[in-house]
Amino acid sequence: MSQHIVVIGGVALGPKAACRFKRLEPGSRVTMIDQSSLISYGGCGIPYYVSGDVSDAKELSETSFHMLRDPKFFKEVKGIDVQILTKATKIDRENKQVEVESVTTGETASISYDKLVIATGASPRKLGLPGEDLEGVSYVSNPGDATRIREAIAKGQVSNAVIVGAGFIGLEMAEAFADMWGIETTVVEIMDQIMPRLVSPTLAKMGQKHMEENGVTFHFGETVKALEGENGKVTRVITDKRTLEAEAVIISAGVIPNSQIAADAGLNCHERGGVFVDEFLRTNDPDIYCGGDCAIVKNLITNQPAYLPLGSMANRQGRVIGNNLAGGETRFDGVVGSFVVKMFESSFAGTGLSLGGAKAAGFDAISVLLTQLDRAHFYPTKELMNLEMIVEKGTRRVLGVQGFGSSGDAMVGRINAVAAILKSAPVIEDISNMELAYAPPFAAAMDILNALANLADNALRGINRGVGPEGFKEMWDDRESGECFFLDCRENADAAAFMERNPGQWHNVPQGEIYDRLDEIPRDKNVVLVCNTGARSYEAQIMLDEKGYEKVINIHGGMAAIKKYGVDL
Amino acid sequence: MSQHIVVIGGVALGPKAACRFKRLEPGSRVTMIDQSSLISYGGCGIPYYVSGDVSDAKELSETSFHMLRDPKFFKEVKGIDVQILTKATKIDRENKQVEVESVTTGETASISYDKLVIATGASPRKLGLPGEDLEGVSYVSNPGDATRIREAIAKGQVSNAVIVGAGFIGLEMAEAFADMWGIETTVVEIMDQIMPRLVSPTLAKMGQKHMEENGVTFHFGETVKALEGENGKVTRVITDKRTLEAEAVIISAGVIPNSQIAADAGLNCHERGGVFVDEFLRTNDPDIYCGGDCAIVKNLITNQPAYLPLGSMANRQGRVIGNNLAGGETRFDGVVGSFVVKMFESSFAGTGLSLGGAKAAGFDAISVLLTQLDRAHFYPTKELMNLEMIVEKGTRRVLGVQGFGSSGDAMVGRINAVAAILKSAPVIEDISNMELAYAPPFAAAMDILNALANLADNALRGINRGVGPEGFKEMWDDRESGECFFLDCRENADAAAFMERNPGQWHNVPQGEIYDRLDEIPRDKNVVLVCNTGARSYEAQIMLDEKGYEKVINIHGGMAAIKKYGVDL
Repeated sequence: MSQHIVVIGGVALGPKAACRFKRLEPGSRVTMIDQSSLISYGGCGIPYYVSGDVSDAKELSETSFHMLRDPKFFKEVKGIDVQILTKATKIDRENKQVEVESVTTGETASISYDKLVIATGASPRKLGLPGEDLEGVSYVSNPGDATRIREAIAKGQVSNAVIVGAGFIGLEMAEAFADMWGIETTVVEIMDQIMPRLVSPTLAKMGQKHMEENGVTFHFGETVKALEGENGKVTRVITDKRTLEAEAVIISAGVIPNSQIAADAGLNCHERGGVFVDEFLRTNDPDIYCGGDCAIVKNLITNQPAYLPLGSMANRQGRVIGNNLAGGETRFDGVVGSFVVKMFESSFAGTGLSLGGAKAAGFDAISVLLTQLDRAHFYPTKELMNLEMIVEKGTRRVLGVQGFGSSGDAMVGRINAVAAILKSAPVIEDISNMELAYAPPFAAAMDILNALANLADNALRGINRGVGPEGFKEMWDDRESGECFFLDCRENADAAAFMERNPGQWHNVPQGEIYDRLDEIPRDKNVVLVCNTGARSYEAQIMLDEKGYEKVINIHGGMAAIKKYGVDL
Repeated sequence: MSQHIVVIGGVALGPKAACRFKRLEPGSRVTMIDQSSLISYGGCGIPYYVSGDVSDAKELSETSFHMLRDPKFFKEVKGIDVQILTKATKIDRENKQVEVESVTTGETASISYDKLVIATGASPRKLGLPGEDLEGVSYVSNPGDATRIREAIAKGQVSNAVIVGAGFIGLEMAEAFADMWGIETTVVEIMDQIMPRLVSPTLAKMGQKHMEENGVTFHFGETVKALEGENGKVTRVITDKRTLEAEAVIISAGVIPNSQIAADAGLNCHERGGVFVDEFLRTNDPDIYCGGDCAIVKNLITNQPAYLPLGSMANRQGRVIGNNLAGGETRFDGVVGSFVVKMFESSFAGTGLSLGGAKAAGFDAISVLLTQLDRAHFYPTKELMNLEMIVEKGTRRVLGVQGFGSSGDAMVGRINAVAAILKSAPVIEDISNMELAYAPPFAAAMDILNALANLADNALRGINRGVGPEGFKEMWDDRESGECFFLDCRENADAAAFMERNPGQWHNVPQGEIYDRLDEIPRDKNVVLVCNTGARSYEAQIMLDEKGYEKVINIHGGMAAIKKYGVDL
């Protein structure tokens, strides 16, 4: 039975669904329409084009072997009819027609469908600020934006830039400006950290410090009030606290699903936008499918509706829709929220819930931070990696893992291993005993991911009771109160410089000597144990517990995490 | 209740179990005995010490912060009594005693235990060859071997080396010799490929070619008959086919579990050695635990007994035993067989069964090979990665994934994501839709792992019917028979050089022109479709299927895999 499939939207999910369907049913017909003239581009690549990592914007619209993915390509190579510069104005479900309008001529027409795919994507959230339409203000949402930004840079017109929003795109654009072009770059974020809700304040601080060291300035808890310009071009950003010079402004304040056409057609949508779909990615009309940036999915950890506008999800969903258009029953159950973002020589990556996200979703959760080498300690290319695990207290269920580190691929590999099992509600033991590939150039014999789960286990057992560098900083900043006794339990040679710089505050008893030197360690103060990464101080904690000490706090991540976090001792 | 735990064996599992237990029960006593004077060293690091990557053998016996893990360290830092140069001669289960003998004085004694841990490890398999005891013949099993080899190299006494066995250690040692020291290095392997049973002949060939390009010579299907020497030092290796000069010989022919003492005590052992344990790592005596290189575990894919002598498994098992000694009920269910080995600038990694392993275990399985970029095709650091997936036909169960590629961490990350779910008997869809972290510097929007599962799906559906470069080579070598029509379906510019070099054999119709040029493509021959990596030729296959062609073969991995495999076109 030959069908006619109509796909509204020619980027990511649309082409993927169209091509997959066409391969399964070569005898059927597919029409893909898009209001723009540019289709099937890799929007996620825009920051790398702006930075110069990608030399030509055309590469974002090419296959891996340099074929331009234009309507001719889709016709000849994929057998798909594409109508560009064609806007879908209405879905007539009763007559199974899409009403369309030519963007150039205004001419209207109707296209009949057997099945319809809504792949309308999302639009950048505009802030409605005075001056937001000035030249030089951009949302990084399509290759046109990218080309304009890079041309302005190439012409030497941009010596300073302001980025509004410290999420994925904001951070990637900050790197693009500051790294390759040496542009004075400032990020303004309304929340009090980068990557709010996605990573903990501790990891965020490590990332922020790394970006600051690479020349990016941050202002947190600050709201942009207006953009001002001269001769129609932006020159200044006015926040509630200051005025910033800016020859380029990037607004990266999230995106809004383009679901109005679906809502108008009576399809179930979320109140804040986005089309609801079932596990086969069907809307409440069984002949209409939807996915990608315009769809609402299920978060498989919270079981709540979720919105995850990512090119990777759109591609996977596109294939699912392609299968199901051809009579399949392929499922897309939902998402756990995996991500990675490169920032100069380091990266954030994560999957599942952060501690903040877990608490907001009603979980009684804790998090633990581990700073450890990513490969055998004797292997020359080893690097310290920081991983945080979020665990539900009673059930020992692992809710998420996030990390910050400099070996990006190695960290992403660990995150992916957790992501792979996260929807099955793993418990700590599943990760303690996960069988990761091992050889000294790639992992420690006890991999950092196994060790992270072990740390969570020890924390829940109450035998490793500690806080991360953020907790340390609070206590250290309050050191004059005398409530805490800071005990460096490394060898004297490691501790000596810190004792010299902090006389009377920084103490040293090597962990192996603790039983012999208990009289130097007070019982009436919080004993704050510090070593290089938190492993030896954990041994010290067990020894002090054994001797009846009641107020012992281990600093997770030790001096390595404290330094990354930016405490100056 | 205070206990006395006795641990026989001071490397990997023994110390791990001892330390974990001691942290959980600081009031109990632990005695660890070892017949050697050197304990708790990272044996997996030996090839990296020989190569010079690790500058001092001492590093292999140190913690990550340079504390030597000697008896004094275990006493002071871990609270564990260590008796070195003490050989356990008998386990007296009735009286719960271990009989020991001093290696230096021959003095005997008995040590009582409440619970016992057998961590006796494994010994290298000796071949029983004439001349095997000559100086310069080594098994790379302890730091002493390593030091001797490296000293000989440093003194300029080694200009050529022969390695017997092309498994993990053999390949790592071949790299160590050839890469850092420029030693003429030959590997002799009794089977017909490197990494037999662990990776497919196709991946093995890619790895072999890479090592040959780095100066290593291989002889397959060849048996060593004798070692010959002068003045007590090895100089030649005699095989059934040739004589090889060798100033150093490494025998890496696997290891044998040291389980005789357990068998003598009536503990259940495998007929070929190795102690059987339950899911709590207890032997059939509930007071005796065993793990690491001397234990037999369960393969969670075949449900058969397995032997996996890996430092990583020993460490994880050590923690499990430590927990259970302290009254816990931590499980170690078995293994899926994850591995990675670095070879110069490339690596093999894998988890689960290879196609050969799957067939040997009775699975009706197929494998598919995918060669694809590991990150966004427009991102500058992208590399081609080769992944092979093994799938059971009827159930669509994924049995294993192996890979060969140059971005080691990135490939290991994919393998680990599969390893994480492999024991839950995943099906293709679980990997098609796996939610891997995505950003262009780390992954393609459709990650290679998702794409690999999609390829397996397409193969089982019968819409992508193909073979890898090995199958291509067979057909190409037989090209004069005229049975195959080799059709390059890339653009003419890509195909032209190959047509010129192979007139009348290499044909070209770009995939987009196939419908217009069907008369150039014969229906009575096997049409062998080739493109860059197998994706476009898959589209071509669908077009030819649609036109009723019956004998169409797609080359998986395309020209990229063919080149890696070493076919000269």
